[in-house]
Amino acid sequence: MNIDMIRAAYARGKGHVRRTPLLSSPFLDEIAGRQVFVKVECLQHTGSFKFRGGWSALSAMDPEKRAKGVIAFSSGNHAQGVTLAAKMHGTSSVIIMPSDAPQVKIDNTKALGAEVVLYDRASEDRDKIGVQLSSARDLALIKPFDDPLVIAGQGTCGLEIAEQAVELGLEAGEVITCCGGGGLTSGIAMALEADAPSFKVRPAEPKGFDDVARSLSAGEIQRNAAMTGSICDAIITPQPGDLTFPIMHRLCGAGLVVTEDECLRTMGLAFERLRIVIEPGGAVALAAALFHGDQLNADTVIATASGGNVDKAVFERALATLE
Amino acid sequence: MNIDMIRAAYARGKGHVRRTPLLSSPFLDEIAGRQVFVKVECLQHTGSFKFRGGWSALSAMDPEKRAKGVIAFSSGNHAQGVTLAAKMHGTSSVIIMPSDAPQVKIDNTKALGAEVVLYDRASEDRDKIGVQLSSARDLALIKPFDDPLVIAGQGTCGLEIAEQAVELGLEAGEVITCCGGGGLTSGIAMALEADAPSFKVRPAEPKGFDDVARSLSAGEIQRNAAMTGSICDAIITPQPGDLTFPIMHRLCGAGLVVTEDECLRTMGLAFERLRIVIEPGGAVALAAALFHGDQLNADTVIATASGGNVDKAVFERALATLE
Repeated sequence: MNIDMIRAAYARGKGHVRRTPLLSSPFLDEIAGRQVFVKVECLQHTGSFKFRGGWSALSAMDPEKRAKGVIAFSSGNHAQGVTLAAKMHGTSSVIIMPSDAPQVKIDNTKALGAEVVLYDRASEDRDKIGVQLSSARDLALIKPFDDPLVIAGQGTCGLEIAEQAVELGLEAGEVITCCGGGGLTSGIAMALEADAPSFKVRPAEPKGFDDVARSLSAGEIQRNAAMTGSICDAIITPQPGDLTFPIMHRLCGAGLVVTEDECLRTMGLAFERLRIVIEPGGAVALAAALFHGDQLNADTVIATASGGNVDKAVFERALATLE
Repeated sequence: MNIDMIRAAYARGKGHVRRTPLLSSPFLDEIAGRQVFVKVECLQHTGSFKFRGGWSALSAMDPEKRAKGVIAFSSGNHAQGVTLAAKMHGTSSVIIMPSDAPQVKIDNTKALGAEVVLYDRASEDRDKIGVQLSSARDLALIKPFDDPLVIAGQGTCGLEIAEQAVELGLEAGEVITCCGGGGLTSGIAMALEADAPSFKVRPAEPKGFDDVARSLSAGEIQRNAAMTGSICDAIITPQPGDLTFPIMHRLCGAGLVVTEDECLRTMGLAFERLRIVIEPGGAVALAAALFHGDQLNADTVIATASGGNVDKAVFERALATLE
């Protein structure tokens, strides 16, 4: 895993992966008490940065292998990112989803072209189903974060941030990432180490699911006690990845932890001030920038808004936080 | 008014005006039955394309004149665009707003730095107040659309569309604009005439306020019967401008007319499929692309999403249109 892999992923993605803007608002700056920029990955294809990793993995694959199709486990953003990337490469995808996933996500993944295989969380083992299917049908597994090609794809977001910082005349600062397994965080950290070393990455997580913050603090991988019970579903993972954690440990500053209420307020502010739609898990970084400034060390902060796939019922709760 | 003025405005705006992305979604393509791209001007500074015109006017002004401050009439997007452009040029702005304008718009315009002068729609004449103030304090008036520098600024959106069409490999199509007084529409039409002549502009308006469609059809300026009673407040004007109409008449195809319900459904779909926030008046173009395909003549359509300043109550109505 090195910067050359990220640069190669960037080259493969040109013309396919969207270069998302860095947005800002004087109103958000005022709340934060500093200059805040938002990297709006909710505007990426399929509504999250996950398309970057999916595209990176698919585009690097041996064409013969790729033609046989790919497989992924996911109930959400990784599913859609892999599915669209597979479709754009003219191949097929199988997505293994829990049967209790939101119907809209199942429908969307199918509509984008995937064969969706449902399993019962209570009685079936998704890993077994995956191994069976991938060996029986010779499908290539694309993991959600602990895969060098996926990390390289997410890292392209960091190369863009480095370029955009130059365009905006930003010389140093902190880059706050929405952090689940650490694919986006470790990828961005490596990209900035190479191209914008005066920017330090700070992972953000929801309260109660702060495995990365605790792992960084302990210097070794820590697990979450629970795996459900958060509206930030997109970034709830059992623990940091074996590949991503050493990178984060080497390059990142201390983790930041935000509440669900702060995520909802942030989604409301992003609606009002940036005119973008973000999901709770995609709001943690901006929430940290807006409401946890006492833990930040820079006058300039860039926060990823990493996804925007949110049900209207949750979005209505976010709107209700506005005056 | 010529293309060189638009190119000059583009040069003056570099690094200040945002280059907004062209977004798309396979789900929207399916509804429309054709390829649809959305030029998301709701992500422009202050949440609408109006910042382009404001920046263009301010940046071209004689510095001594500019230093005395500017004045504009507007209860909405033009107010905010001019105010921020003035602030970024280090000068002051006076905005004349009706006292019954939404408090949030008054507050925002003040917060961006304007001196807001309220008048009573029933008993006071805003033009008189404007003439008095601008002559007493020697302020330069920036009109909302019928001003060559403002049209040139809005036209920079068209130069970007021409560049982005090349980047995306689009060879021909129709560009549907959200049309009020015609500043954006005529500016884009001139830009495309020069740089992408295989793209034809089609203005879109809400039902009951289709002065531009009727004017284009009649070959002469027609007025709207009413000036209130639409949720598309941002694009309700009495009639096309004296400068903008001849340009639109020479370059545009027939106007398109959409209902308010179609606008609300479009706002819901833009939330769900593009993760952007658009206001009713900023939704008319995409609504025409999605729901009036029978009146379109091209396989590829680019619709402007021209603004995103919407109250949460109206946005909740848009969300309610989703299943």
